[in-house]
Amino acid sequence: MRVALAQLDYHIGNFELNTQKIIDKIILAKSKKADIVVFSELSICGYPPRDFLEFNDFIRGCTESILKIASYCDGIAAIVGGPSLNPKREGKDLFNSAYFLADKGIKDIIHKTLLPTYDVFDEYRYFEPNTVFECIEYKGVKIALTICEDLWNINDNPLYVICPMDELIQQKPELMINIAASPFDYKHIEERKKALRDNAEKYGIPLFYVNHVGAQTELIFDGGSVAFNSKAEVVNELKYFAEDFNIVDTEDFDEPVLDFGFSTIELIYDALVLGIKEYFAKLGFKKAILGMSGGIDSAIVLALAVDALGKENVTSILLPSKYSSEGSVNDALAMLQNSQSPYEIIPIENIVDTIEQTLHEKFEHTTPGLTEENIQARSRGLILMAMSNKFGSILLNTTNKSEAAVGYGTLYGDMCGGLAVLGDVYKTQVYELARYINRQEEIIPSSIITKAPSAELRPDQKDSDSLPDYTMLDKILFEYIEQRKGPHEIIALGFDAILVQRILKMVNTSEYKRHQMPPVLRVSPKAFGSGRRLPIVATYLHT
Amino acid sequence: MRVALAQLDYHIGNFELNTQKIIDKIILAKSKKADIVVFSELSICGYPPRDFLEFNDFIRGCTESILKIASYCDGIAAIVGGPSLNPKREGKDLFNSAYFLADKGIKDIIHKTLLPTYDVFDEYRYFEPNTVFECIEYKGVKIALTICEDLWNINDNPLYVICPMDELIQQKPELMINIAASPFDYKHIEERKKALRDNAEKYGIPLFYVNHVGAQTELIFDGGSVAFNSKAEVVNELKYFAEDFNIVDTEDFDEPVLDFGFSTIELIYDALVLGIKEYFAKLGFKKAILGMSGGIDSAIVLALAVDALGKENVTSILLPSKYSSEGSVNDALAMLQNSQSPYEIIPIENIVDTIEQTLHEKFEHTTPGLTEENIQARSRGLILMAMSNKFGSILLNTTNKSEAAVGYGTLYGDMCGGLAVLGDVYKTQVYELARYINRQEEIIPSSIITKAPSAELRPDQKDSDSLPDYTMLDKILFEYIEQRKGPHEIIALGFDAILVQRILKMVNTSEYKRHQMPPVLRVSPKAFGSGRRLPIVATYLHT
Repeated sequence: MRVALAQLDYHIGNFELNTQKIIDKIILAKSKKADIVVFSELSICGYPPRDFLEFNDFIRGCTESILKIASYCDGIAAIVGGPSLNPKREGKDLFNSAYFLADKGIKDIIHKTLLPTYDVFDEYRYFEPNTVFECIEYKGVKIALTICEDLWNINDNPLYVICPMDELIQQKPELMINIAASPFDYKHIEERKKALRDNAEKYGIPLFYVNHVGAQTELIFDGGSVAFNSKAEVVNELKYFAEDFNIVDTEDFDEPVLDFGFSTIELIYDALVLGIKEYFAKLGFKKAILGMSGGIDSAIVLALAVDALGKENVTSILLPSKYSSEGSVNDALAMLQNSQSPYEIIPIENIVDTIEQTLHEKFEHTTPGLTEENIQARSRGLILMAMSNKFGSILLNTTNKSEAAVGYGTLYGDMCGGLAVLGDVYKTQVYELARYINRQEEIIPSSIITKAPSAELRPDQKDSDSLPDYTMLDKILFEYIEQRKGPHEIIALGFDAILVQRILKMVNTSEYKRHQMPPVLRVSPKAFGSGRRLPIVATYLHT
Repeated sequence: MRVALAQLDYHIGNFELNTQKIIDKIILAKSKKADIVVFSELSICGYPPRDFLEFNDFIRGCTESILKIASYCDGIAAIVGGPSLNPKREGKDLFNSAYFLADKGIKDIIHKTLLPTYDVFDEYRYFEPNTVFECIEYKGVKIALTICEDLWNINDNPLYVICPMDELIQQKPELMINIAASPFDYKHIEERKKALRDNAEKYGIPLFYVNHVGAQTELIFDGGSVAFNSKAEVVNELKYFAEDFNIVDTEDFDEPVLDFGFSTIELIYDALVLGIKEYFAKLGFKKAILGMSGGIDSAIVLALAVDALGKENVTSILLPSKYSSEGSVNDALAMLQNSQSPYEIIPIENIVDTIEQTLHEKFEHTTPGLTEENIQARSRGLILMAMSNKFGSILLNTTNKSEAAVGYGTLYGDMCGGLAVLGDVYKTQVYELARYINRQEEIIPSSIITKAPSAELRPDQKDSDSLPDYTMLDKILFEYIEQRKGPHEIIALGFDAILVQRILKMVNTSEYKRHQMPPVLRVSPKAFGSGRRLPIVATYLHT
């Protein structure tokens, strides 16, 4: 049996586009003598459609598209992901399904059993879990067809009570097909491959896995669709971070392929570039702007954006104030020289002065401090938004994960923007990105990498005035955010108790800021955004 | 049996406070010869704790508090809501449980079966559903103890396959107790009472229901705990929007009480006042500021805030520009005269001029338009935030639901603030609120109610220049947002096709703005915020 793996990028809700892409690949697969062509989970509508699933009209759009696609399945079968209606009165109204299309019609509909409802996933919000297990059959071959999470209940501390493949294997299928929408994080490629390999090993039959690729606001899908033979060896692996299409013959498997072996930082880089690129493409924007401070965060965002959008499409705005050092401006200009991208200089001193004069009377007898620093940051935000509005570009936010975590940033100031490019990248990882970007030639000037981080909102300010060293800070944040350890557990690791309490309190009390921050490109297993949901009003750990 | 209903307000994660409140009421109930005292769902940690439930340390805090409370249960029993660990290897790690405490220990732990995972609820994200049904017994009385949603599977199109009370009734309990955290919306009091009454009727035994009261950021819990006799008559009803405590004797039920009969607008008013009050109290703030334009939205927010926080704690900031009409300033001053609350006037003309001069060169050969309007709105936002930062107050946002829906507002401008008071109140409902507030004396000046709405960002601007009449707009928005109808269904109701398409497109393409808006006080069954989750990058309905 010749199985075509079609790893495509879908646009949520764009039925016309998604349907055409699927039909094109069915025609291609047929021309290459494939027996069956496999598309990813919820491919018909894009993943995640979220509450659009609550609109009957949206479900109708999915069904009509599936029927249109079925009409092209003549002499070839296709597996397409889409929602389907639950015919029973009890339970949720929908299933998350795989449509098995052949002979110009819907031959079978297989439903997802295990519905991920954690981190960024909300599937039980929409779908009823499957409880019936039946293999599909095509050209005399029995196939165990499952959807994404259905293959994941095989490790310690399983999340679910049921294991779908344990049920299906009793019907003696000859191969497994799994369609997925499994988003990237820097640990996930390895974990996913292990889970898939464990399945191929446990059940001893070939496994074909087709994943979604592309970015949907915060979620980045890395692709990496893959085929295992019955010895659990990888015989075919599709591209990462790009659309791809391959045909695998189960009668004549290729030789096992070697693991690609990515470095973590390379993966993060590729994911961020894809994330930026697709956010713009899918919103119909070409041009980005960003505030260029001469610091490392804005330099990295510029490098990433130039790679994603082309240097002519990324305009840096330098917004010097009276506290901006000469060094910073020179560093910014050096970076721009390297990237060969356009820039503008708009000093904010007059604006800040006018605002302070306007408020002078109200602020009499008060000491200048955070309020005045915020006024500078917000004046920059205001100018950046004005430039963005006037010239139809999207403002890229440059806040990193360490800053976002402790609330070291000004709401409506440097926290402005359409997309937080580094919002899931700790400061220490930002430096790693700089080294990675500079691996062949100096793109990020070394002076930017070596100088002490500063917000430059008052004379001689350094981040280290109010924050611990980032190496220490990031370790504590990692234990709290990624590992979900409480203060006692973190202190037990050897960190200073007062420091831990102070940092955890900063994280919790800045929840209100993150609530209003731009969507964050997710590259870690626990990113700020829809995968981390905490109350704004709470007192846990505050004391 | 004498059952005490303890309807309390809990602070999420504040174990010390919550535990003390519960112990105080156990002591009170005992002094009043109650046999058993009932607290609401997840009372030990407050509802919703969200991802704090993923911290082992947080769960430990819950368990320790439960044990401390148990030590006070001597000669009296208590039912306290809290998470409990799932002893099984498979499935989620926690149950959402009711601890039955007596004889100074934990006598029984009953788990929730039906886990709401829709709208603002994410319970399956954290909890494993219960599958075992056992009544508890105390002083020879068999009690069917359930948790909130467990009583809700009794109508048409049930969301769940199981009905817990159908299982429990087979053990012939003599009464039902249900502990809940059921948030307010303007339709919910009636629906909830009906669901409870339907249960009392169906099972023919008394029902005691204890709900959470108080506000947790966006969610407002209205209380309204209630007791039904076996004839499904209400024999005791606790307060709405306030803590309360009553004892009901099952041997000697009181006479049935009449329904309070609220008006919708009265409920919304009370909910919003509680929402503001608690947001400030729980964050430890006393003072609010708001931008006072002379329009109806800011006038209503002022009236609500004065009721919630006291007139001396709400400072209005008038920020006139060259486009502000004399009428607006006078209307604002008339409103302030009525409310007797402090205000400041800070003209923004110089700031706007300086910004426009700064950008003059960059903006040469462009036509003034939306960018310039946004500069005004953001200058106001900047000043308001500076005042808020300097004097330690929270900025109240005045955006209404109609504006938030269509994106008629400036991000980082009038969309600034810590709490969106009217973000779930349509413009037509804002007018209803004005009439309600004025029911006894004129608090909102009639000139504010009767004039045409305007953002006053350019000469003679009216909302109706770019939006349809609010009566029409709100009807279409209601069909799309609350009713989740698609364009064809809405057009079929008789609305103009082009208008419907245009409005739906405005709603969808402004998702990115709502993503960054302050938390919205939820008063409807479908509010912006955690209960409505839509992709930012999507094209559904855009064409």
